[in-house]
Amino acid sequence: MSVLVFEGFLSTPEMLALLEPASVVQRLMDFEAALARAQGRCGVIPLPAAQAIASLCRVELYDVPALIQASVPAGSLALPVVQKLAETVGLFDPVAAGYVHWGSTSQDMVDSAMALLLRRSLGLIEDDLLQLLGHLLDLAEAHPAVPVLARTLMQPAQVSSLRHRLLNWIQPLLRSAQALRETADAALQLQYGGAVGTLGMLGDQAEAVSAALAAELKLPQAAMPWHTQRDRMVRLGAELGILCGALGKLARDLAWLCQPEIAEMAERQPEPGSPATANASEPGRGFKRSASSVMPHKNNPVALLRALAAAERAPQRVAGLLASMPQELERGLGGWHAELAEMSGLLLHAHGATRALAQGAQGLRVFPGRMREQIEAQQELVFAEALTLCLIPVMGREPAHRLVEQLCHQVAPGGDGLLALAQSRCQEDVRLRGRIDAGTLAAHFNIDAAAAQADRRLDAVLVAARQHWAALSDHPHW
Amino acid sequence: MSVLVFEGFLSTPEMLALLEPASVVQRLMDFEAALARAQGRCGVIPLPAAQAIASLCRVELYDVPALIQASVPAGSLALPVVQKLAETVGLFDPVAAGYVHWGSTSQDMVDSAMALLLRRSLGLIEDDLLQLLGHLLDLAEAHPAVPVLARTLMQPAQVSSLRHRLLNWIQPLLRSAQALRETADAALQLQYGGAVGTLGMLGDQAEAVSAALAAELKLPQAAMPWHTQRDRMVRLGAELGILCGALGKLARDLAWLCQPEIAEMAERQPEPGSPATANASEPGRGFKRSASSVMPHKNNPVALLRALAAAERAPQRVAGLLASMPQELERGLGGWHAELAEMSGLLLHAHGATRALAQGAQGLRVFPGRMREQIEAQQELVFAEALTLCLIPVMGREPAHRLVEQLCHQVAPGGDGLLALAQSRCQEDVRLRGRIDAGTLAAHFNIDAAAAQADRRLDAVLVAARQHWAALSDHPHW
Amino acid sequence: MSVLVFEGFLSTPEMLALLEPASVVQRLMDFEAALARAQGRCGVIPLPAAQAIASLCRVELYDVPALIQASVPAGSLALPVVQKLAETVGLFDPVAAGYVHWGSTSQDMVDSAMALLLRRSLGLIEDDLLQLLGHLLDLAEAHPAVPVLARTLMQPAQVSSLRHRLLNWIQPLLRSAQALRETADAALQLQYGGAVGTLGMLGDQAEAVSAALAAELKLPQAAMPWHTQRDRMVRLGAELGILCGALGKLARDLAWLCQPEIAEMAERQPEPGSPATANASEPGRGFKRSASSVMPHKNNPVALLRALAAAERAPQRVAGLLASMPQELERGLGGWHAELAEMSGLLLHAHGATRALAQGAQGLRVFPGRMREQIEAQQELVFAEALTLCLIPVMGREPAHRLVEQLCHQVAPGGDGLLALAQSRCQEDVRLRGRIDAGTLAAHFNIDAAAAQADRRLDAVLVAARQHWAALSDHPHW
Amino acid sequence: MSVLVFEGFLSTPEMLALLEPASVVQRLMDFEAALARAQGRCGVIPLPAAQAIASLCRVELYDVPALIQASVPAGSLALPVVQKLAETVGLFDPVAAGYVHWGSTSQDMVDSAMALLLRRSLGLIEDDLLQLLGHLLDLAEAHPAVPVLARTLMQPAQVSSLRHRLLNWIQPLLRSAQALRETADAALQLQYGGAVGTLGMLGDQAEAVSAALAAELKLPQAAMPWHTQRDRMVRLGAELGILCGALGKLARDLAWLCQPEIAEMAERQPEPGSPATANASEPGRGFKRSASSVMPHKNNPVALLRALAAAERAPQRVAGLLASMPQELERGLGGWHAELAEMSGLLLHAHGATRALAQGAQGLRVFPGRMREQIEAQQELVFAEALTLCLIPVMGREPAHRLVEQLCHQVAPGGDGLLALAQSRCQEDVRLRGRIDAGTLAAHFNIDAAAAQADRRLDAVLVAARQHWAALSDHPHW
Repeated sequence: MSVLVFEGFLSTPEMLALLEPASVVQRLMDFEAALARAQGRCGVIPLPAAQAIASLCRVELYDVPALIQASVPAGSLALPVVQKLAETVGLFDPVAAGYVHWGSTSQDMVDSAMALLLRRSLGLIEDDLLQLLGHLLDLAEAHPAVPVLARTLMQPAQVSSLRHRLLNWIQPLLRSAQALRETADAALQLQYGGAVGTLGMLGDQAEAVSAALAAELKLPQAAMPWHTQRDRMVRLGAELGILCGALGKLARDLAWLCQPEIAEMAERQPEPGSPATANASEPGRGFKRSASSVMPHKNNPVALLRALAAAERAPQRVAGLLASMPQELERGLGGWHAELAEMSGLLLHAHGATRALAQGAQGLRVFPGRMREQIEAQQELVFAEALTLCLIPVMGREPAHRLVEQLCHQVAPGGDGLLALAQSRCQEDVRLRGRIDAGTLAAHFNIDAAAAQADRRLDAVLVAARQHWAALSDHPHW
Repeated sequence: MSVLVFEGFLSTPEMLALLEPASVVQRLMDFEAALARAQGRCGVIPLPAAQAIASLCRVELYDVPALIQASVPAGSLALPVVQKLAETVGLFDPVAAGYVHWGSTSQDMVDSAMALLLRRSLGLIEDDLLQLLGHLLDLAEAHPAVPVLARTLMQPAQVSSLRHRLLNWIQPLLRSAQALRETADAALQLQYGGAVGTLGMLGDQAEAVSAALAAELKLPQAAMPWHTQRDRMVRLGAELGILCGALGKLARDLAWLCQPEIAEMAERQPEPGSPATANASEPGRGFKRSASSVMPHKNNPVALLRALAAAERAPQRVAGLLASMPQELERGLGGWHAELAEMSGLLLHAHGATRALAQGAQGLRVFPGRMREQIEAQQELVFAEALTLCLIPVMGREPAHRLVEQLCHQVAPGGDGLLALAQSRCQEDVRLRGRIDAGTLAAHFNIDAAAAQADRRLDAVLVAARQHWAALSDHPHW
Repeated sequence: MSVLVFEGFLSTPEMLALLEPASVVQRLMDFEAALARAQGRCGVIPLPAAQAIASLCRVELYDVPALIQASVPAGSLALPVVQKLAETVGLFDPVAAGYVHWGSTSQDMVDSAMALLLRRSLGLIEDDLLQLLGHLLDLAEAHPAVPVLARTLMQPAQVSSLRHRLLNWIQPLLRSAQALRETADAALQLQYGGAVGTLGMLGDQAEAVSAALAAELKLPQAAMPWHTQRDRMVRLGAELGILCGALGKLARDLAWLCQPEIAEMAERQPEPGSPATANASEPGRGFKRSASSVMPHKNNPVALLRALAAAERAPQRVAGLLASMPQELERGLGGWHAELAEMSGLLLHAHGATRALAQGAQGLRVFPGRMREQIEAQQELVFAEALTLCLIPVMGREPAHRLVEQLCHQVAPGGDGLLALAQSRCQEDVRLRGRIDAGTLAAHFNIDAAAAQADRRLDAVLVAARQHWAALSDHPHW
Repeated sequence: MSVLVFEGFLSTPEMLALLEPASVVQRLMDFEAALARAQGRCGVIPLPAAQAIASLCRVELYDVPALIQASVPAGSLALPVVQKLAETVGLFDPVAAGYVHWGSTSQDMVDSAMALLLRRSLGLIEDDLLQLLGHLLDLAEAHPAVPVLARTLMQPAQVSSLRHRLLNWIQPLLRSAQALRETADAALQLQYGGAVGTLGMLGDQAEAVSAALAAELKLPQAAMPWHTQRDRMVRLGAELGILCGALGKLARDLAWLCQPEIAEMAERQPEPGSPATANASEPGRGFKRSASSVMPHKNNPVALLRALAAAERAPQRVAGLLASMPQELERGLGGWHAELAEMSGLLLHAHGATRALAQGAQGLRVFPGRMREQIEAQQELVFAEALTLCLIPVMGREPAHRLVEQLCHQVAPGGDGLLALAQSRCQEDVRLRGRIDAGTLAAHFNIDAAAAQADRRLDAVLVAARQHWAALSDHPHW
């Protein structure tokens, strides 16, 4: 566990492993090996030297903690890695030692290594993101025409559908999956420019070595070195931030919908055989995950907690990336280092949140009965706008508004609902009598019709979303 | 001037005008007019009512300050605009008044209006951005093979070229111009979903009205309403933040290069006829813009100040956008309002910075003589790496490094430069004598060759950049 | 309304008025008048000149929009104000014109003027904050020993008391009120240093003029000019951010407690005479404030929205202040300007949120009956920890935990609660039979005792809080 | 090295050690031991049980990586620590196992442990901060009346003094040292409230146990549990952010002043015996720290890099703390976890930056000769304001301004300085002839007098700063 206690807890073991020292050092050595091979192939350095160097670029040969320690005074991890590598190569082949890191610079190593690391990291994130999307799509496909109570400004508003709510969560996550691929393709390029970005030490061979190195690392070549122009990297970071935001929206909604007072959804079936099995089809008691330390009746939604923490922290990380952009001249003081650290943090957050919700969504249960109950508890107030629109053509805007407002105030627990009140009013009120057909009126108060209306436009959206998901799933990118 | 003193100062009159109340209210009314026309055409509301409504959607008919004031208790500007519009329509056509805002919701109005506003705002930004890029491209084309001293970590490093430096500024700005178009195309969509996003009040006509409304406003239709899923809007905001970051990088570099102690560049020719004309070809005294209040000898780089302030503030605005994403359920409490305000701020910053630098770059002067002076003052220390790479094959890695380090320490003001020291050492040192050709050695210390090397790979980059710029300039997007 | 539409809506008319151009310009002129008087009194400038200058430092004599416009190229509002003032003085007294702004610098004006502005702004904020606190204290005093269901991680947890909840909101707000006074006392100092902070133009009279100027403006003198060391100003900004955070906590809780599904609290009595009066003592339908544009049954909690938007935005503003601290040398490029703008934003947010909640809390209703209902709906699960602690001494840790967990799972809607299940188990289970007294057990399940326990430690806290509030209210500070 | 590569590099080994898992777990166990002892002493749990528990609260008995791993599904590190502790206690004393963590909650453990950790962390930071301040004070005391060129907006402005510059750096750092003590005293309190903050399980003994526990941990008792009201903790975090900002200001200035082009200051004497010794009294080549990987002539200012990275990142961390404040109800979802992680990051940044600058400042060299050179290179332009103020009483404001501006434009490299130009103008210009005394004029152009004036007011400030420093150094707080 190579990370602060309070950070690691919010991420995943896989992402932590990718970012731990040995993994980072190996990526740096992958660069050195590829550089030596490329330069050997182009005749910039002797081929045997290239082979000698490449063969020793394996992290298990080195004392990683010592490298890390040496990086502090050096101001860079690249420096001690190069020195130790050259020293080690020198033990076997003193001539080859001279060609280690030939004409390159620390930032070439670190930026290219970071591109390699990011490629793997984004693969991890996408895996879980597609899983999460798969679960949500399954639910959306399985539940057509389920009415739910839509809340706006945390107040009961009107009838929507479960599918509408699910697709509303799905769409931005699908866009994130797509955009991560695209921004990564633009950002994860070979960084190779030498000390000041001109490849000055390579003379006429600059182009050839650059091409060979790119091929070795399977990274695209950049038109220009990007060591002080980090826009593409920041764009990628912003995408990770947007992903965390969309996951935070999902988590916040789920936290609300799964709380026992609402209980429209719940995580996981209780374990079979447990005393609660009898109630398995009943609304649960929330998005269950972990026991409380002292309250045996509680099931704390830890997955949601993790996603919400990520959504709260990611904006600041993206701000950190943006703030690091105005670097001084040909290599700045601090901006680049800040960027590397903030980006690492974003990866931790993004994978922590995606994994948490992917696991949480796996057994997500929905309770259509409870959803309808919540609508019915509104005593038809949710049709107030529909009623108003019925009345306006008959009595005009202001009178209609006033009348419906009055009727809404008359709705009281245990008493008549809005439809009954409206119907009697239609008979009493001289302005309305005979002008509003009772059947037409009732038709506007139909919960199922409202859900169907919500679903109607979404058939194509759902099909397209599933196809998009399948295309992403079927064509691995990372 | 409809903005806080300390905000307005950092932006432009045009952007401030776009965001001021009357302009925003007109955009809201554009939506209402388009809605009425679309619904009239689809037969959802009577055609004469549609015409009556549309004809009164002109901001000059209304008391804008009163509308703004009424928005505070209402929690939205949309509400008083609808009420006042309905009231006004009612004066002429009481029936039509009933059809104002039919089946729509506040957020439909505001989000769609914001899309209209953003389209115009981004046009303003692009205009200035292309101007800035034009100036920088002109400079790059006019100055091939000019050696400059590249600084890394604020220390003199090696020789690069002016064109390399210019293209390094140009590239990310070009990418920003491109990316702003693309993210805007995705973000600036019609928002139309009614109270909870289902267009519940429109029944079977939802689709037709939506299409007609999109056509009226020339905004693309979204697959789903996006009132609680703001990822595309945030992505656009992040692009504005990235633009500010890239401008901040440019401004920070210019501030450094234009300070009198360095004086490699300077803003503006002095006015003809002024006593300073005699020195017009000399390095200037910085990026001139505004007089100091009390120091007549100073010329404060106000343009850079404005760009740097924007680059410092934009990250926080983007963080604000990201933080607003996890909105509650079908319309959140505060998140959306925060987003609108943060986005407005970003527009102010981005245009302020772009305009400032476009104006500042217009007369930007470069001083190749001064640039060379700075390199020469380094007494060839900038070729230390080249010297090392010459020596390694002859004497091995560590000895070569040690020797060059020693030589570097011997370089002292007024004394021999690194080349002379290296040459005498090559004759004295038994390990080197006769093994290093003096001509070859000198060839590695060639300032012009280093600049040429820096330029070489950039020919194609410069051509492509100019073409990209021309394509953007020739095909207006907004 | 001198602010962006989307900003102004989230603040208050009073704060907007304080920050609008005319008000800022008057503060700048207050500085110039005081400076002239101080210098006149010290004999640095002729007394008649001082009087002439001071008499013309009245904003209503100037064209404020023109001043604002001129500030853009000047890079400062101070510059055109000084120029216009000198010009105007010159019309009456050409000699006096020469002594305008004598030996001072723009930043002296702006920073000192900002201190004056902040003093007034903080007074506005404190007024509303004390009102809000007064309302919350009234509620806490009026409602002893009211049991409420405490929720942790959005899950029902245990019984607490209404007073505990209220004091938990009150305490940090009281600390904010206190801390704002203290950090403001440290931050709101005279800024007076001349061009580079040394008062170089005043020679031996520097000290005397500084003292006289401080007395004129009723601002304390600083030990050193603070124009590039903004820590105290940032500390004050951080306090405003902390206030917004504490208000955000309150608003988030209220939004949750006032939502119709929970309805433990509600804003405002319905208007007397309205049809809803009959239900006045019943739980309301949320924190009412503004009508929806289309849904007559809704009452949107606009006050909470405003507070939540502020809480979401303030962190970014504080980050902006902190990011502006590393200013370059004796006056930086952009940092100071960014700070002024971010600080203005914080004032808008902080007052908007405080006012919103002060108004919202004024008529806040609490529903003890509903609070108890929510506890009772838990079927005694909230006493699970108490039960466990009863059983541990009898049967050991693990068996007790397992048993209580089992019992918790047996609790089902409509069935026995946890107490009844525990009691029968105590008789059936051989490990427990005769070892747990039924009365003792029941005593641990007492809702009222739990609330009383929650209240007990708070008697002194409540008294102290009221005294603190009274002390703040009785001794105006601003 | 228990932290991400790119984070650890920017901090210190000591701070990393404090925050690594074993250290955090020991702090958690310190809480449990103290709790057991306190409850044993109060008779809440049997005394032998208390002793058994306390004796096993030693981290070396536990498998820390396993605890960390278990924390992930648990959503808290506290849970597995309690379980493992209880299990272990149970091996020796099954009855005692039942009393582990009696009536307490996870957050009590973690918050109180964090208070213990912070106390130690702040001690580390203060040590280095006082060292840094000591070095700066030494310099200020050693260098009276040294003229320096003050730059505003990165333009040469007027003459100030080295002492003024040093005290300008010292003052905010001293304030930070003081404020950290005060905000820590308020923030680092015992957290002890049980499951929902009421200490419900302790009944009448709540008060006594709380007092005993506070005494055990040497933490003050809070008036109320603060588990959801984090204002004091955030205030402490903001102080750390302000410290980073003030250090960033210092680092940015040093980076500028130490760059070889300016060379007014430099880090460290070269090693004795090195070839550069001969030049030891000459301006150096910058703030030396680490070699470049490929450029032997460079000495990269790694210390400054680290401080600047911290100053760039800290604002975002503080924003993270503020954003976590609006926690839901009696314990939120994610906010608290985000706060813990952001606070850990702030500690890493703050100590990294303080240590870096403390080490960097240790051998900081100042070059008064070079400082004067820079002033003289301005050809007296820095006295333009003084000249203007001389002329105004004689010729009026506008003519004086115009004349000085003209003269400033006439100053050209190699030509006359401003004084000579002004003197001849005084003889030529009919408006001035005989009205300006040549000696008086020259007196206004005195570099040493300007520095002396800058120093004059600072004698008392310097003495007070040294006393404050001594008081802090002599009275250890942590």
